[in-house]
Amino acid sequence: ESADKFELGKQKAKVCMTCHGENGISTLDPYPNLRGQKYGYLVSALKDYKARDRTSGLAILMQQQAENLSDQDMEDIAYYYSNLGKDSNK
Amino acid sequence: ESADKFELGKQKAKVCMTCHGENGISTLDPYPNLRGQKYGYLVSALKDYKARDRTSGLAILMQQQAENLSDQDMEDIAYYYSNLGKDSNK
Repeated sequence: ESADKFELGKQKAKVCMTCHGENGISTLDPYPNLRGQKYGYLVSALKDYKARDRTSGLAILMQQQAENLSDQDMEDIAYYYSNLGKDSNK
Repeated sequence: ESADKFELGKQKAKVCMTCHGENGISTLDPYPNLRGQKYGYLVSALKDYKARDRTSGLAILMQQQAENLSDQDMEDIAYYYSNLGKDSNK
């Protein structure tokens, strides 16, 4: 059950992996690592991007990403990253 | 030499530890873990808070923290967190 939730989040996070890395360790210095990040923080950050409460340089790029995410998408993606690297989840 | 830089950043990050935790793993779900986070991302996030480019709920709290940080402070704190947990740094 939580494994399915993790898998679902992983599918939805495919698009994030380009910048945030295959395993949640980002590919470039300006992009944050997301591996094992706090669930609540991830959801609020995504919401801030969608609401355009983050507006500096790279934030614009993230606004475009967050724009087409539903609340459920955000929760699933946050669930995936917050559990990435924890015990059984590779 | 890098050990001194790490120590200097650690001193400056004392105030951050209340929310972001003694070892960079935050104490509460809405606050991000900073342990081993990307240096460039940490510096840009702090600059965004200082420039008020991040404005949602908790961002206000971070704006107050970032307000009295110089660029050098931000770099030292980012150096500390980005190296926290790496090889010799506890």
